[in-house]
Amino acid sequence: MEILKKHKSFSGFTCFGEHESEATGTKMNVSWFMPDSKNPDHAVIWLSGLTCTDENFITKAGTQKFLSDNNMMLVCPDTSPRGLDLPKEHDSYDFGSGAGFYVNATTDGYSNHYNMYDYVKNEVVHFIQSKGVSKISLMGHSMGGHGALILGLREANLFSSVSAFSPIVNPINCSWGQKAFTGYLGEDTFHWKKYDACELVKLGKSRNEILIEQGLADDFLKEQLLTRNLEVACQESGQKLIVNYREEFDHSYYFISTFIEDHLKFHRDS
Amino acid sequence: MEILKKHKSFSGFTCFGEHESEATGTKMNVSWFMPDSKNPDHAVIWLSGLTCTDENFITKAGTQKFLSDNNMMLVCPDTSPRGLDLPKEHDSYDFGSGAGFYVNATTDGYSNHYNMYDYVKNEVVHFIQSKGVSKISLMGHSMGGHGALILGLREANLFSSVSAFSPIVNPINCSWGQKAFTGYLGEDTFHWKKYDACELVKLGKSRNEILIEQGLADDFLKEQLLTRNLEVACQESGQKLIVNYREEFDHSYYFISTFIEDHLKFHRDS
Repeated sequence: MEILKKHKSFSGFTCFGEHESEATGTKMNVSWFMPDSKNPDHAVIWLSGLTCTDENFITKAGTQKFLSDNNMMLVCPDTSPRGLDLPKEHDSYDFGSGAGFYVNATTDGYSNHYNMYDYVKNEVVHFIQSKGVSKISLMGHSMGGHGALILGLREANLFSSVSAFSPIVNPINCSWGQKAFTGYLGEDTFHWKKYDACELVKLGKSRNEILIEQGLADDFLKEQLLTRNLEVACQESGQKLIVNYREEFDHSYYFISTFIEDHLKFHRDS
Repeated sequence: MEILKKHKSFSGFTCFGEHESEATGTKMNVSWFMPDSKNPDHAVIWLSGLTCTDENFITKAGTQKFLSDNNMMLVCPDTSPRGLDLPKEHDSYDFGSGAGFYVNATTDGYSNHYNMYDYVKNEVVHFIQSKGVSKISLMGHSMGGHGALILGLREANLFSSVSAFSPIVNPINCSWGQKAFTGYLGEDTFHWKKYDACELVKLGKSRNEILIEQGLADDFLKEQLLTRNLEVACQESGQKLIVNYREEFDHSYYFISTFIEDHLKFHRDS
């Protein structure tokens, strides 16, 4: 990991770096917060949403005070490989660059690079473990909330707790997910199910309680996020789930920053 | 004021708007936070630094929780007029667009538009007063710290308290200030002094205690900010000044977010 920028923040440093990735075959950008102890008790991975980079959350969410006070590390990977020029990669905001959807791609061209599932599971986790941290939690927003749910359900032993803001809970049934999964995984929807939180719960995947925060003024709730479908799947399977619906709040970082401390406490106390 | 975007944040709304300005002869962008009471006890104006817009501070500084808890309003004007095409206006980061320097320009072309001193003093203050708020504080960063100091010293009765992060305290003696003042005010340095905090203090301008936060790892400290010159001027004139020098902290928003709550408390308790 090469450190590109480093800024003193509360009792620690906010850092931006890049490293060569096996999973993507490219350099990958990562940001993180390291408390002054350099020996954190706990790390939280944040997975960002469509169009974001590794910079959005660590710049806007206002977590550094809580992380400082609680001797916690934060790691924010980028949302896709960069610097490639694959077919259709840069044509739209919801596919390709900035939109990796946390899957391992199988389609031509993408299969060599768009392996964000393995990237997070192996390389981001390894980066944290290399700092001596074994307790790792996972959270994310929108597309990144989807990422947190699927990784958290499939790798239950790797992540001590999972939460999400405004997650895409059922991508096989919304246009964002259908477009991305067609592009990364091909037309056969059978292969999509292992990347769909609702389908994973139906298949019997389970873990400790999941926490979700969802704004009721979120423009994407009805068409893309489909939160209710996960509530139904969890009720039927017995998976514990808390969904906090928040009146007037939208899909933005202003929503995230309002409730992020509640989520960090949930992870700290898990 | 036309509201362009509005986001629920903690107990209030973060808003982005635009309005026609008399001082600049253009539309001006403004962001603000309004607590749910819609009847704030107090307002703080934030003046941003070079290259910033009305969006940087309200997005990155993490003030909304404190403002919510203390029934305070925040208003962040843009750093210059926009949408013009004056000579040299868009050629560099430290002059013209994004670099208004909070003066009233007198040079050809600029004198009709770059009147940020009057814009803040009259129109930003009027916007706050139109919400029924009479207690108004002023703070800013770098070029905006300079703006807060000169407006706060010259309009001592208008602003109940003044503070700054990493301010340019003596622009007539640094290259940023010399370039800007030449472009906005002409070659005669006599006309520069009323926009220089050190000179204003030497001329006898005074107000209640001023608070400054300054990082010691700030790359601009020695060449552009010249903090020590203001300490000397204040000591000689009897103006009360607190400067908190902070080891390891730089010129970034990570520095601002670390100490912003201290400054908001200073203003609240003024």
